[in-house]
Amino acid sequence: MAENHTPAQNLAQASSGTTEPRSRFLRACWRLPVDRTPVWFMRQAGRYMADYRAIRARHSLLEICQQPELAAEVTLQPVRALGVDAAILFADLLLPFLPLGLGLEFVKGEGPVIERPIRSRGDVERLPAIDVRQELGYVLETIRLVCPELPPQVPLIGFAGAPFTLAAYMIEGQASRSFLRTKGLMYEDERTWHTLLARLADLVAEFLAAQVQAGAQAVQVFDSWVGALGVEDYRRYVKPHVAHLMERLQELGVPVIHFGTGTAALLRDMVQAGGSVIGLDWRVELGQAWAELGYGVAVQGNLDPAALLAPAPVLERKVEQVLAQAAGRPGHIFNLGHGVLPNTPVEAVQRTVEMVHRWIPVRQTAVEGGA
Amino acid sequence: MAENHTPAQNLAQASSGTTEPRSRFLRACWRLPVDRTPVWFMRQAGRYMADYRAIRARHSLLEICQQPELAAEVTLQPVRALGVDAAILFADLLLPFLPLGLGLEFVKGEGPVIERPIRSRGDVERLPAIDVRQELGYVLETIRLVCPELPPQVPLIGFAGAPFTLAAYMIEGQASRSFLRTKGLMYEDERTWHTLLARLADLVAEFLAAQVQAGAQAVQVFDSWVGALGVEDYRRYVKPHVAHLMERLQELGVPVIHFGTGTAALLRDMVQAGGSVIGLDWRVELGQAWAELGYGVAVQGNLDPAALLAPAPVLERKVEQVLAQAAGRPGHIFNLGHGVLPNTPVEAVQRTVEMVHRWIPVRQTAVEGGA
Repeated sequence: MAENHTPAQNLAQASSGTTEPRSRFLRACWRLPVDRTPVWFMRQAGRYMADYRAIRARHSLLEICQQPELAAEVTLQPVRALGVDAAILFADLLLPFLPLGLGLEFVKGEGPVIERPIRSRGDVERLPAIDVRQELGYVLETIRLVCPELPPQVPLIGFAGAPFTLAAYMIEGQASRSFLRTKGLMYEDERTWHTLLARLADLVAEFLAAQVQAGAQAVQVFDSWVGALGVEDYRRYVKPHVAHLMERLQELGVPVIHFGTGTAALLRDMVQAGGSVIGLDWRVELGQAWAELGYGVAVQGNLDPAALLAPAPVLERKVEQVLAQAAGRPGHIFNLGHGVLPNTPVEAVQRTVEMVHRWIPVRQTAVEGGA
Repeated sequence: MAENHTPAQNLAQASSGTTEPRSRFLRACWRLPVDRTPVWFMRQAGRYMADYRAIRARHSLLEICQQPELAAEVTLQPVRALGVDAAILFADLLLPFLPLGLGLEFVKGEGPVIERPIRSRGDVERLPAIDVRQELGYVLETIRLVCPELPPQVPLIGFAGAPFTLAAYMIEGQASRSFLRTKGLMYEDERTWHTLLARLADLVAEFLAAQVQAGAQAVQVFDSWVGALGVEDYRRYVKPHVAHLMERLQELGVPVIHFGTGTAALLRDMVQAGGSVIGLDWRVELGQAWAELGYGVAVQGNLDPAALLAPAPVLERKVEQVLAQAAGRPGHIFNLGHGVLPNTPVEAVQRTVEMVHRWIPVRQTAVEGGA
């Protein structure tokens, strides 16, 4: 039904370059002109939706992730309710920690807590080899269930955490403000640090390859916590592993979205590390950031998630600001600068989709009209 | 004893421009050449020092702030123990909330909690007019006690919170991740928001003027939380108030340090808003940030506070990186990118001071040698 749901087609399309995708989202990822700016939202499935809360009332977060029928249903809810241009797999960044034997619990009000954090070389060496296709098979099954249900031209985005963000969760054991344990291991035992990040980069590469094979037509790498690092630290301790990961992902033939928050000072290095699309958080001006990064990369973002809770005129002004910053240049995917907040009104999200779809990318139209 | 401890001298010096200060710190603030890069640390007085913990064991944080003898002693401790080039007043950003009647408590492990947060226009209108010289007189008395005890050429820095950061504390009532209540008021009732920020800017201007009159030879404005805002929001909701505040502070004739964290995308607007020195957090590259801001402003920073917990060779490398980024250009004050962390070893802080003082600003020496 959808235009390119098999990996063979994905690859053929990417390598031949002859068959342009029809999906707005995929076209924007490849910086091709679009009729309307594509839009989706990080955490577009979740607590702010009544349909999700109804399922969540009967199942834990982990149950939803691990039961493909439930995860598929939750993945599809926002596609139906919002009319977004892409679906994103419903899963959790930390699912790979389960087969790695770290223990993972979602504590109310605190978010994920790791029972057996990684703190030493020994801990890293004891991490078991895992077969993601086997041990995270439920994620792949979710993808297989979702894809045939999606409207044509609404692709499914797979995702995983980036090596730094996964390592930081593993080491801290929970959310952190200063990331002292993470930086501690990084500074005190650089060899162990690089061993850990290399392993995580391989794991993520395999996991995302499996997701694409199952039908995902794009992938997003979440380096949500990387903004805790200074530029020198990023270059020395993180960037080589991201670059290696991105190199492997490029072979999959699908767009790769490279996202982080608090990354204003890291963006140039993130582009160098790789990715077809750079996810911008709301702190940067999209227009200026894109100009600095160069138009050889697509950008995704970057409405402040808090704007969805603002009165309609403020929300409208802020949506227009983001669109104006992109200036109708091919290669912009509208999104938030981070995930949808739990108390967001669904109507505000719907209105945002309508606004983005109503907006005509002026510059692009002018260029086409003139050609 | 010290060179310019009276406000009359401060002003004369600033306005005449004929008497250059001898203090390294003040010289760097005015972008004058220095023999060695000056260094001090945000939160250089605090829990990481045994002398402080000894006093803290017998007194609450508020007691220390409100008893000038104790606050003066705590202010002087790091000057003696570290050999830094400036002292910073020991006080808390939120002390003005006490006469404003908001209630202020320091809850173990959670930081400050405001008992009666500000949430509505009525709350803002009910804020009493306060006489900072009277009601925060203990802070001014601390300054009067500290100044005569400081070594010559070690000036005292006064400080206060910036309007946005104070407003965010007032509205949230405690530390926050998403600042939803703050942004809520900002978006929903812009008039009330501007009323509140204008009042806070005036209060801070009066408080810092009183600190300078009491003997502070420089002031730092902490906009610690402003990095939560996108650039457009900063320009619309915050910058005019900071600009007004900075205009009033300029009349005091002392250097004004304008500091925030997570501000990589805001720095240009912060420079436009004002301040003789821009405080950089550790996320930006000092060299690149300074080049972008222009050398018409001095910069302070920007070692990652976590580096002080790293092994000696890593700390050394990172101190040298910061110094190398500044390239011996007049107008760099070495500092952390944020406050000293509680479990920092004192020896690491001492070693950092020694490293900074050992380092010869090459470029500057070369220029002087060639002239």
